[in-house]
Amino acid sequence: MSHTYEYARAALTVDCVVFGLGEDELEVLLIRRALEPFANRWALPGGFVHIDETLEDAALRELEEETGLRKVYLEQLYSFGAIDRDPRERVVTVAYYALVKLSDHKVRAATDASDAAWFAVSDLPDLAFDHAQIVDMALNRLRAKVRYQPIGFELLAKKFTLTQLQRMYEVILERTLDKRNFRKKILGMDLLVELDEVQKDVAHRAARLYKFDDRRYRKLVKQGFSFEI
Amino acid sequence: MSHTYEYARAALTVDCVVFGLGEDELEVLLIRRALEPFANRWALPGGFVHIDETLEDAALRELEEETGLRKVYLEQLYSFGAIDRDPRERVVTVAYYALVKLSDHKVRAATDASDAAWFAVSDLPDLAFDHAQIVDMALNRLRAKVRYQPIGFELLAKKFTLTQLQRMYEVILERTLDKRNFRKKILGMDLLVELDEVQKDVAHRAARLYKFDDRRYRKLVKQGFSFEI
Repeated sequence: MSHTYEYARAALTVDCVVFGLGEDELEVLLIRRALEPFANRWALPGGFVHIDETLEDAALRELEEETGLRKVYLEQLYSFGAIDRDPRERVVTVAYYALVKLSDHKVRAATDASDAAWFAVSDLPDLAFDHAQIVDMALNRLRAKVRYQPIGFELLAKKFTLTQLQRMYEVILERTLDKRNFRKKILGMDLLVELDEVQKDVAHRAARLYKFDDRRYRKLVKQGFSFEI
Repeated sequence: MSHTYEYARAALTVDCVVFGLGEDELEVLLIRRALEPFANRWALPGGFVHIDETLEDAALRELEEETGLRKVYLEQLYSFGAIDRDPRERVVTVAYYALVKLSDHKVRAATDASDAAWFAVSDLPDLAFDHAQIVDMALNRLRAKVRYQPIGFELLAKKFTLTQLQRMYEVILERTLDKRNFRKKILGMDLLVELDEVQKDVAHRAARLYKFDDRRYRKLVKQGFSFEI
């Protein structure tokens, strides 16, 4: 079966930039392409949008098919439409991005990807298409976002120490933060609930654990705040 | 000439939400559709993306064709891909938005629009397609943006009074602001240059004129700030 139109049409794809928080690095999930163009090159998970699915459904489907990741909260990033971004023909892609906990997501390659793996954003391989540009835009969006929205709910374990929270900001912003100043600001936002628990199984002195106040977190996501970090 | 593909393809369009600053209202530029679907209904300027033009070029072209507006700085807003958003067939649209000075832009209808006009955002007619949703998202983006980026360069005259600047924020945010507090904050950002000039031809006492410090403005757009307004 084939489909005929009066005017030439671009093909429409989706691509996903999925960030996870590694030990000392922000990581991004890549797949190794099995097929041409760019066979064997690393690329963002993604693919063609079916005529009967929404953009977001397409992104979720491709992400699961190519990496095994499910139930990820995707946010739309930007649509890339440069004329020559795909050597085959005109392809416009709608890019999405997401933050996930690395521990929740064992990745496995599937369908037209021969491999799937996490890479440190500071040490990415040569990417297919304009995917390096897409990753860059996602990074900029994330770095801008930490200034006016709470962040971490999707990246950190349910219970975390203030040091772990600060480390997350440092990894995203790629700079060290003053400990005292950071704690004063983050505690001043009423975003955290101090638990009656400390870390277990640590060599050093066990630190206090915190969690996010769900209601306050959602409220701040909605109305924004200013975190001059 | 016709074009045949193995899989069905969505049509790709662009739509533009252009905001201007009216006396007491934020206004948006609409066109009246000459053709079906939604003939005679008001809609956002926009149309089909040609196979050999970028998304932004398509948006600029459609905006000029349908309204006469030229050289507008468009920013990409979001891509809308709900399955049934167009009664004809599957159409995915990439929406852009822009801020312009009303005085710079005499609009005139052209091509497939039978009319073009400015409407107060609080009093929009019934819009075609999902255009009401697109306008809503653009408004939310603009309201969020004033909190972390300077704004007004595109909306105000080159020289303006502090009252005019405050009025712009009030119109966008749809609430009154405390005058003393507003002035303290806006002057504290080093964003304004006080001119050795006052308003002309006003009945009341002529107020001092200001302009934006171009370099500082561009710097703040890039690095963001926090304007807790």
